[in-house]
Amino acid sequence: LTVEYELACANGEDPFALAREIAVEQTAEVPEDCIPADLNERIVGHIEGMEHLESGRWRAVVSYRRAAIGPGVPQLLTILYGNISMKSHVRITDVRWPSWLLEALPGPAFGISGVRELVGVPSRPMVCGALKPMGLPVDELARRAEAFARGGIDLVKDDHGLHDQAAAPFSTRVARCQEAIERGRQAAGTRTLYLPNLGGPIDSLPARVETLERLGVRGAFVAPIVLGLDTLRWLAETSGLVLLAHPALSGVFIHPDHGIAAEILYGDLMRLLGADGVIYPNAGGRFPFSEALCQAINRRLRRRLGAIRPALPVPGGGVRVDNAPYWSTCYGNDTVFLIGGSLYQQSNLEDASKRLIDSLAAAAASNPPSASANDRSPR
Amino acid sequence: LTVEYELACANGEDPFALAREIAVEQTAEVPEDCIPADLNERIVGHIEGMEHLESGRWRAVVSYRRAAIGPGVPQLLTILYGNISMKSHVRITDVRWPSWLLEALPGPAFGISGVRELVGVPSRPMVCGALKPMGLPVDELARRAEAFARGGIDLVKDDHGLHDQAAAPFSTRVARCQEAIERGRQAAGTRTLYLPNLGGPIDSLPARVETLERLGVRGAFVAPIVLGLDTLRWLAETSGLVLLAHPALSGVFIHPDHGIAAEILYGDLMRLLGADGVIYPNAGGRFPFSEALCQAINRRLRRRLGAIRPALPVPGGGVRVDNAPYWSTCYGNDTVFLIGGSLYQQSNLEDASKRLIDSLAAAAASNPPSASANDRSPR
Repeated sequence: LTVEYELACANGEDPFALAREIAVEQTAEVPEDCIPADLNERIVGHIEGMEHLESGRWRAVVSYRRAAIGPGVPQLLTILYGNISMKSHVRITDVRWPSWLLEALPGPAFGISGVRELVGVPSRPMVCGALKPMGLPVDELARRAEAFARGGIDLVKDDHGLHDQAAAPFSTRVARCQEAIERGRQAAGTRTLYLPNLGGPIDSLPARVETLERLGVRGAFVAPIVLGLDTLRWLAETSGLVLLAHPALSGVFIHPDHGIAAEILYGDLMRLLGADGVIYPNAGGRFPFSEALCQAINRRLRRRLGAIRPALPVPGGGVRVDNAPYWSTCYGNDTVFLIGGSLYQQSNLEDASKRLIDSLAAAAASNPPSASANDRSPR
Repeated sequence: LTVEYELACANGEDPFALAREIAVEQTAEVPEDCIPADLNERIVGHIEGMEHLESGRWRAVVSYRRAAIGPGVPQLLTILYGNISMKSHVRITDVRWPSWLLEALPGPAFGISGVRELVGVPSRPMVCGALKPMGLPVDELARRAEAFARGGIDLVKDDHGLHDQAAAPFSTRVARCQEAIERGRQAAGTRTLYLPNLGGPIDSLPARVETLERLGVRGAFVAPIVLGLDTLRWLAETSGLVLLAHPALSGVFIHPDHGIAAEILYGDLMRLLGADGVIYPNAGGRFPFSEALCQAINRRLRRRLGAIRPALPVPGGGVRVDNAPYWSTCYGNDTVFLIGGSLYQQSNLEDASKRLIDSLAAAAASNPPSASANDRSPR
């Protein structure tokens, strides 16, 4: 496992010493004189390269052995950024995943082609609508779900704030919205897929997954930073559901001099752990993500990466009905646009949904055909 | 639930508009014209106060209703900092926990007095040793564990990097180290408590908790940011174990203009979710925490907070044998010092441990008696 760190060294700080400190802190975590020679070789990170970038900034490349990582996502996260997260000027800018790790992680169970197959959309960009705002009674959420399905919206997710509040408890909400979507599908001949918020508490998840299975719900979403990243891995391996990852709480990782680069977090980690689609805040919306950053996330989600299926970028947080076609020409057809507010601002949700899908189909016709790397049938 | 945010407004940004944006983003998350009037009252956050701090910095106080939060830790975290974590200049500086929430969260199952009872140390500061470095075979880790127990170290934890690597797999390591500690306890008449790293994968935790029970291990630790904060809550409610929280990956929350203030994260959240002791990086060590910040964390961990038991501060990451007595006079007796490297640097681990405990007992005699708020018997 090779990790590229960007170091912001204060005046006089020795970048080579800092790189060695990282290599020790993340592994042996004892003073140098307490590290047996063989562990220095087998366990402590190896500095593979150092590069001066600009005033005080360095790139350090450190590799970690399988003996230090072992099995399991928690120790992978601990090696990547556990203790050094508490240092103020170390940021992960790239990770090279060894093949043994790519084979150990699930990746998306469906991937881009698997989701396309389920929703019956072979090539155009897709749309995900959101059931919101929280506080609405189940009746009204179900009414909105049906309108989305009648309008041909491809995916309909719960708002990420819909958990188990009294106004719309999980079981009732999911049952009613699934029925409503089924009605809409039947009436309009669409293939809308419902993605409830699995939410948590953590110990409720096995029963909730069973509930979805019983109701015939084929997908769901979780916020992996809220629930724990390993929970996404577990769901991808065991639930049989199409899984979207929601970025709630993930902003804590994204800083110019600290954390994990957004394209690694959303583009690599979420995909490797099993997200079929990864929601992130789009450029030009309510959050400060640049278009270049969004493109970098998209590239990572779709690139060739061992036998890991490609995942769908799901830009949201400010994508609107009027600019979705524009963004689809920027991002290409293998994209899901998460659109909420600008659909609700129109008087007829079903008609607004139809117009949006039509406008994306029209825009898609002028896009080059999608060519996602190593896509393969869902398992 | 009342949350105090510090806003770092850029030139010309309206702090009142930003506060309203937060109140909506964290709840209804739709454009203002899509929020029904009754939800504006019942669901959207209420701005309780605004205060100008200094050039461009404002304090905004926003309260959230129970109807928006509902049951469950994941939605609590989502309301606190879910989507606004992706804004670059909003930081949580204080939280006032309503009594209904204090009653719904477990807090420590043992607390300060419960841990003291288990290790038989009524009043002096305690010491936690760490089994490390990773890569050592189980034999050598067990030898170190026995030396700690013979030397009277109060708590012995696995290194947080010890998961299930081939050199020391979880089950073998825990069984052997527990035996070794039991031997040391018997031989020296001490009451050392072993705290293995539960580690994960997440789906291994129920079986691992059972393993500990079968082996007679009474405590454990987890890294709640790695495993997910709700996993700590679940363990506190169900495992019957003394639980320490490790700060791996938690540094992503700690920024001057962003994230969640360290005293809230370590001092309130970890305690509310059930940590009997909370490890954090001490001042003057390898991480940039000030003494004032550490004191603020300590105060939160020990303060009166509904019926939630107080928890032990566990400063580590650079606390040494030679300065632990000094820190004990700063922090008071209700503290556990996590000491690794400077014990291993001495030739005889058992003797070094004894000297350390003696020096802390001597320092403690001059400390005022502990007076932790609302401590009560462990459940």
